[in-house]
Amino acid sequence: MLNNNTMRITIIGSGNVATHLAAAFKNAGHYIVQVYSRDMHNAALLAYHVGAEAIDSLEQISNEADMFIIAVKDDAIKAVAAALIKHEKLIVHTSGATDMVVLEALTANAGVFYPLQTFSKTKEVDFLTVPLCIEGAGEPITKQLVELAQTVSNNVYRVNSSQRKVLHLSAVFACNFPNYLYGAAQQLLAEQGMDFEMLRPLILETAQKVQMHLPAEVQTGPAVRNDEITMASHLQMLANEPDLFAIYSLLSQQIIKNNNAGTQHG
Amino acid sequence: MLNNNTMRITIIGSGNVATHLAAAFKNAGHYIVQVYSRDMHNAALLAYHVGAEAIDSLEQISNEADMFIIAVKDDAIKAVAAALIKHEKLIVHTSGATDMVVLEALTANAGVFYPLQTFSKTKEVDFLTVPLCIEGAGEPITKQLVELAQTVSNNVYRVNSSQRKVLHLSAVFACNFPNYLYGAAQQLLAEQGMDFEMLRPLILETAQKVQMHLPAEVQTGPAVRNDEITMASHLQMLANEPDLFAIYSLLSQQIIKNNNAGTQHG
Repeated sequence: MLNNNTMRITIIGSGNVATHLAAAFKNAGHYIVQVYSRDMHNAALLAYHVGAEAIDSLEQISNEADMFIIAVKDDAIKAVAAALIKHEKLIVHTSGATDMVVLEALTANAGVFYPLQTFSKTKEVDFLTVPLCIEGAGEPITKQLVELAQTVSNNVYRVNSSQRKVLHLSAVFACNFPNYLYGAAQQLLAEQGMDFEMLRPLILETAQKVQMHLPAEVQTGPAVRNDEITMASHLQMLANEPDLFAIYSLLSQQIIKNNNAGTQHG
Repeated sequence: MLNNNTMRITIIGSGNVATHLAAAFKNAGHYIVQVYSRDMHNAALLAYHVGAEAIDSLEQISNEADMFIIAVKDDAIKAVAAALIKHEKLIVHTSGATDMVVLEALTANAGVFYPLQTFSKTKEVDFLTVPLCIEGAGEPITKQLVELAQTVSNNVYRVNSSQRKVLHLSAVFACNFPNYLYGAAQQLLAEQGMDFEMLRPLILETAQKVQMHLPAEVQTGPAVRNDEITMASHLQMLANEPDLFAIYSLLSQQIIKNNNAGTQHG
């Protein structure tokens, strides 16, 4: 799709976020001017896919781009941005945990373009469903970024820096911790000669249920039933797994507590 | 679909498991003879959907069925089974946490038919994907139950009682605890005026990732990167939420520990 708001974008970074963002912009008809990575091999791989020039030095940054999208590790954002300000273009970062102030300290031409999704290079994502959380240093920039975001996603939100930090924190609870628990379940099965494959339909259905319902409405298991016999039996099975014992205890207590308080089942 | 192994089945119970099992058997061409519930209204609702007779007394059980499938609360299985043995039919329960011995103490004509899935009456499930974990008191019964299971699902496993208990425990880690964490994330967003809708694509993608990968291969977030600055910032944001603070601390420590031990990233 080519559109009237076609932008020329340079991507700083070549990791998961950079890769998926660059592909989404390219697919929406925007031009990726350059891809920067400290590692030329990584820069070249991504640049090849999106028809851009690969560079491994910020000295090689071209003035041709309308904007720079910084998708590097949080602790490198400030230094990268400092090297880009002389070009006097719009500079945005993509970090959930980083305040926009980090850019605004350098330039008024700043914004944030935070995709609230977990990306892997080896797995395709339907980018139209990815929530894009936009913040701009002033309404004109916000509006421009929202319009850009809407060319690649149907889920565009205006989110300020303090909200974005909470979103990033909540994503740890909604993504990183559940994935860890999937691994704990896999470990328990493996010890009994059973395969993780057995749990995959359950994991998928659990996530699909909350697409239409709120989590409290579909909470199941011994804790929400306060089924003390089953919980005691489970804890006994974990007697030799102190870490999983501690997790089982804490999370079960929380489910019981929430349920009693009626904060989940309201 | 009608098939040569058509069975006449009476369902004891009218909850989520009873409802989905009865519908799956009916759809596969089996006959549901009766549906029993202590609550006649519930029995009648399910019986109507599957063309069966509704009963609310075990005295009304018909001899017409080939087998009884007990899908009631764990602590009621024994008493229900005791009331059924005089009919001298195959009796199976559907509980993950209950040893087959509970039935075998009453009859040699016993088995287990455990669907490893989370069911809600209000949400359809593609039953062909539901893992069915089968155990029989002896090979002829096991074989008969496996054949029955294969008429409704493509994921049929032979699982003994001690394995099944571990499966049930692992399902708490893979389903009940993640769902609780989704609710915790929802709570964090709500406090900042943001909607759970923003997290739904992330939750779904997290579950979809492990359909093809193992959890450790796709673990993301500050803990697996040992990003101490972000973790400290998150814990600071949870200073007034002691419960979520404790969960964040414990699960992050576990992710760091697993990662260092190479037990997840191997």
